[in-house]
Amino acid sequence: MEKLKKYVSVKDEDHFYHQGAVELLIFNFLLILTILTIWLFKNHRFRFLHETGGAMLYGLLMGLIIQYVTKSPDVESGTVYECEKLKSGPSTLLINITDQVYEYQYKREISHHNVNGHQGNAMLQKMTFDPSIFFNILLPPIIFHAGYSLKKRHFFRNLGSILTYAFLGTAISCIVIGLIMYGFVKAMVHIGQLKQWEFHFTDCLFFGSLMSATDPVTVLAIFHELNVDTDLYTLLFGESVLNDAVAIVLTHSISIYSPKENPNAFDAAAFFQSVGNFLGIFAGSFAMGSSYAVVTALISFMHLTKFTKLCEFPMLETGLFFLLSWSAFLSAEAAGLTGIVAVLFCGVTQAHYTYNNLSPDSKMRTKQLFEFMNFLAENVIFCYMGLALFTFQNHIFNPLFIFGALVAVFVARASNIYPLSFILNLGRKQKIPRNFQHMMMFSGLRGAIAFALAIRDTDSQPKQMMFTTALLIVFFTVWVFGGGTTPMLTWLQIRVGVDPDEDLKAKDASQSASNLDKNTTKAESAWLFRIWYGFDHKYLKPLLTHTGPPLTSTLPEWCNPVARLLTSPSAYGDQLKDGDTDYIINNDELTENYEPSAHIPVPGSIQATGKEDIQEGDLGLGGYKLQLQHTACQPQKNSLA
Amino acid sequence: MEKLKKYVSVKDEDHFYHQGAVELLIFNFLLILTILTIWLFKNHRFRFLHETGGAMLYGLLMGLIIQYVTKSPDVESGTVYECEKLKSGPSTLLINITDQVYEYQYKREISHHNVNGHQGNAMLQKMTFDPSIFFNILLPPIIFHAGYSLKKRHFFRNLGSILTYAFLGTAISCIVIGLIMYGFVKAMVHIGQLKQWEFHFTDCLFFGSLMSATDPVTVLAIFHELNVDTDLYTLLFGESVLNDAVAIVLTHSISIYSPKENPNAFDAAAFFQSVGNFLGIFAGSFAMGSSYAVVTALISFMHLTKFTKLCEFPMLETGLFFLLSWSAFLSAEAAGLTGIVAVLFCGVTQAHYTYNNLSPDSKMRTKQLFEFMNFLAENVIFCYMGLALFTFQNHIFNPLFIFGALVAVFVARASNIYPLSFILNLGRKQKIPRNFQHMMMFSGLRGAIAFALAIRDTDSQPKQMMFTTALLIVFFTVWVFGGGTTPMLTWLQIRVGVDPDEDLKAKDASQSASNLDKNTTKAESAWLFRIWYGFDHKYLKPLLTHTGPPLTSTLPEWCNPVARLLTSPSAYGDQLKDGDTDYIINNDELTENYEPSAHIPVPGSIQATGKEDIQEGDLGLGGYKLQLQHTACQPQKNSLA
Repeated sequence: MEKLKKYVSVKDEDHFYHQGAVELLIFNFLLILTILTIWLFKNHRFRFLHETGGAMLYGLLMGLIIQYVTKSPDVESGTVYECEKLKSGPSTLLINITDQVYEYQYKREISHHNVNGHQGNAMLQKMTFDPSIFFNILLPPIIFHAGYSLKKRHFFRNLGSILTYAFLGTAISCIVIGLIMYGFVKAMVHIGQLKQWEFHFTDCLFFGSLMSATDPVTVLAIFHELNVDTDLYTLLFGESVLNDAVAIVLTHSISIYSPKENPNAFDAAAFFQSVGNFLGIFAGSFAMGSSYAVVTALISFMHLTKFTKLCEFPMLETGLFFLLSWSAFLSAEAAGLTGIVAVLFCGVTQAHYTYNNLSPDSKMRTKQLFEFMNFLAENVIFCYMGLALFTFQNHIFNPLFIFGALVAVFVARASNIYPLSFILNLGRKQKIPRNFQHMMMFSGLRGAIAFALAIRDTDSQPKQMMFTTALLIVFFTVWVFGGGTTPMLTWLQIRVGVDPDEDLKAKDASQSASNLDKNTTKAESAWLFRIWYGFDHKYLKPLLTHTGPPLTSTLPEWCNPVARLLTSPSAYGDQLKDGDTDYIINNDELTENYEPSAHIPVPGSIQATGKEDIQEGDLGLGGYKLQLQHTACQPQKNSLA
Repeated sequence: MEKLKKYVSVKDEDHFYHQGAVELLIFNFLLILTILTIWLFKNHRFRFLHETGGAMLYGLLMGLIIQYVTKSPDVESGTVYECEKLKSGPSTLLINITDQVYEYQYKREISHHNVNGHQGNAMLQKMTFDPSIFFNILLPPIIFHAGYSLKKRHFFRNLGSILTYAFLGTAISCIVIGLIMYGFVKAMVHIGQLKQWEFHFTDCLFFGSLMSATDPVTVLAIFHELNVDTDLYTLLFGESVLNDAVAIVLTHSISIYSPKENPNAFDAAAFFQSVGNFLGIFAGSFAMGSSYAVVTALISFMHLTKFTKLCEFPMLETGLFFLLSWSAFLSAEAAGLTGIVAVLFCGVTQAHYTYNNLSPDSKMRTKQLFEFMNFLAENVIFCYMGLALFTFQNHIFNPLFIFGALVAVFVARASNIYPLSFILNLGRKQKIPRNFQHMMMFSGLRGAIAFALAIRDTDSQPKQMMFTTALLIVFFTVWVFGGGTTPMLTWLQIRVGVDPDEDLKAKDASQSASNLDKNTTKAESAWLFRIWYGFDHKYLKPLLTHTGPPLTSTLPEWCNPVARLLTSPSAYGDQLKDGDTDYIINNDELTENYEPSAHIPVPGSIQATGKEDIQEGDLGLGGYKLQLQHTACQPQKNSLA
């Protein structure tokens, strides 16, 4: 009320004080409530409403309160003014109103039919933040954290299945939803439930692609807490993280597609262009993300002559790490690629290379910092989704469409998981059991990404209806399926309280007992990754981190001058230490105890990565190495002598 | 260029992608450059340009580059459109341009004379972020960190002097600058150098108040690095932190003042109202900040029956700590008080009470988190100040005014430091030596606060001229005085490389030898603080933290039921442990070794606070207590049994 008055009577003496403070305070208040609720839940072992569901509920209630308490429509809005002199909308508009010039900033283009819906109240309008804040500030920490805390050992064991689910599965899901919705829309137009809008097949595909992004947050938080079977966890984690990336690129490609001439006809050229776009954007984003991570690794590894290493200044190191990772996202977005994909692979690469170069202090700092940002961003997003039901002014609720979408989403999830699991089980030695498949089917929640993709474009009426529907499906799946996760786990008799390492050991032991030919089969299926890991261990790791054999020993004899050049003198000295090489060899032997399948000739094969696993034992990366780095990275006191 | 085109032809297919990414990327790039520069400086012990100066320089260069590379003025802007139907500026404006409705959002009211200056380029315009982001997001972490890392022991030893400089000194500075500038403006009008604007005495006072905020960042960073004499450090730190708070409230009070009838006449009623406002706002903000901190302490201390303590979930604890502290700022702003003052005292109170209740993990986390946020916010602000020289579109450079302001600023600083030091030295046993006074005079840099206060209001021409002048004075002082700090220290023969604790011990020893009557003098001058500390130790600390004697022993006999109620059963049990009471007593004895002046009858006097000093020995707060908390706060694994 007060804020609104302030806005209309702009002459007010101190209108510029506490601008935006109230809105931020409301979010703070919601987050504090959420944290207190989480605390309460943790105490009462209450699992029927997850914290994300709680955050959403609070957002919803707050939206309701604001709606009713500050019910004073902005009288001026809803009126359209004519301006014949202008040809297009400039970014800034100066308007003379009763002898006073006001500056207005371009916000967006709206359709004529939205004009009437524009009589919302000013407070709610101000709570609506720009989708670009969502994409540029809130999503990157979540996705980066997912990449950074990826359990690589388990991930690579299931890489084939994960990639199948993520790429093929998401494509299937997108097409199935698109087809079903197209049928529904046609039927609705036929029975007169839907006016004849321009609802093309591409619009349906667009909806299909955005609804194919499953949410990694809610279910995985519960899984993590309960220590659910590691293979199931990894499959779901890998699938939902990669599937977000795929869905985002897919949505982007489809929105670029649009053959303008005849939107309903299938245009082969445009289709292949879209596929090309998809591959190009995906590959480009991947390259962008990885190269930023490699730059970070190089900088953190670099020790020029007369230069103290960066790891002696943990604050600078953390800052650089943070900024470069964020820049990976922003550069990709600025270049027209997909930032989410870039930041995901940036996270994976950072964990693989840069993490090893950090000082122990920075390892802790970065991990805690990213964890914290992830936590905050997650809860802000879920609170905001709750609020969006009220803050967004142009909802179009169409019960039939919503019902159709719900059906489509479940059919699509089923035709993703079950057929693909069947095909995968033909090739997998360690089958994906029935109850895992049911659980994966059940865990197809929709969350932040679907919401964010839907809110990006809400100009036309079909897009608004899609947004409303997507929001309601998010609510439904998070509350019903999120809340049902624990009972479902019990009902499907899935193991909980599993220690990941113990689990792996036990499984490997039982497997190597049951099928002796496993090692060879595994080695065959993973040959591509073995080659990659051999290359990684012999050349990339020595180049980018402190671990691995010195380049001079892995590169051919005649490359020695180059090898010497590529590592700085002091690093070269470090690398040649006997202890260090010992460490690597010992560690390889150690990991062999865990994973019998490591009996492959390439030194430092895929299993050696287990030691970089962040979530499990961050600072227990072998006492030796830690100590080695510690002596190299004691903060130096600068004094003016 | 590309961004601009995108903005004008809004029909562009994917204009909503990478919105804002380029601007954020530029800031990221500047920050990365700054960090690399800091690293370079640290390596070369280069002290003639401090990192903040470097950040400003990069911002300046980047502004220059954008200015010249993207030189394509927005053709449409600069034209004012008439709108007769409107009475005042609504918050949202819908405009029909060639059959397409565009939504515009209210930005600000501008004067007619600014219209022509509005032909800047769109890229630069978009780099200009809202002053509310400055105030609500960037400043709070800096000020909070200052409060949180306050070295309380040294601070309270010099409290009288610090308060004198901060309150009396800032008032003197404000009035002196105001008077000199008023004289200058009158003279300039007289010789025709300045058009007869409405340049009132209150405007001059406004300028005086905003230019009185000295910057704690640059000089103190250098001092901290060089370990300059602790008393000088504390005096400057305390003065510049409190003086910011005073200057902000003063600016606010003056902007409220404005007796409309005859702006030049002295209106006694309005003056006293302003003084009342000042006191009310200061006290209100103080109360707001402290109460948020007390709430945090209570929550983090709370252990209800059947509840696990919050400290078992470091993430929740950190999150709550962060959000409540920020809420202190936002609530104060929303209530029309001064957030900066609130967040400063919130920081001090958090460090005093809440810090003791945190788990060891959260202690580390919060400290590192606030340090990191402080670091980032600081550098963003200085980069932005560099950019502002180009991004701000309505600069009014008036060389005479700038010269006058420079003179005024130095005269004001001199009439603050020297007379007050003289008066203070009359009362102080340990005099402030001449070279300290010169150094304090020299360290009166202007920085972020002066800039932020000036940018808040740039509607009228006098305010724009003030903003330009303030910005240039910031540049000048940061580069010239910031760069000259190290040579000046050498020239004034001020001790560097001092260990704060050793220093205190040595000083106390030499003093108690030279003047034996010191203890009584000290005890007399500090009686108010002794009473406060007695109260704090006996009642507040037991109520809010784990330390201190149990309330049942400090409250009178008949209060026992209340005392038992106020501490939860388990805390009460903890408090009664013999070890704990022993610890407190022992610790008091320990601190007595450091400070002979502790021989005053009140148990747990002012000196006992030394042990909460965060910057010095965070986790070394006595092994006993740490262990005690550690056993109470081991993270609990939740498993579904």
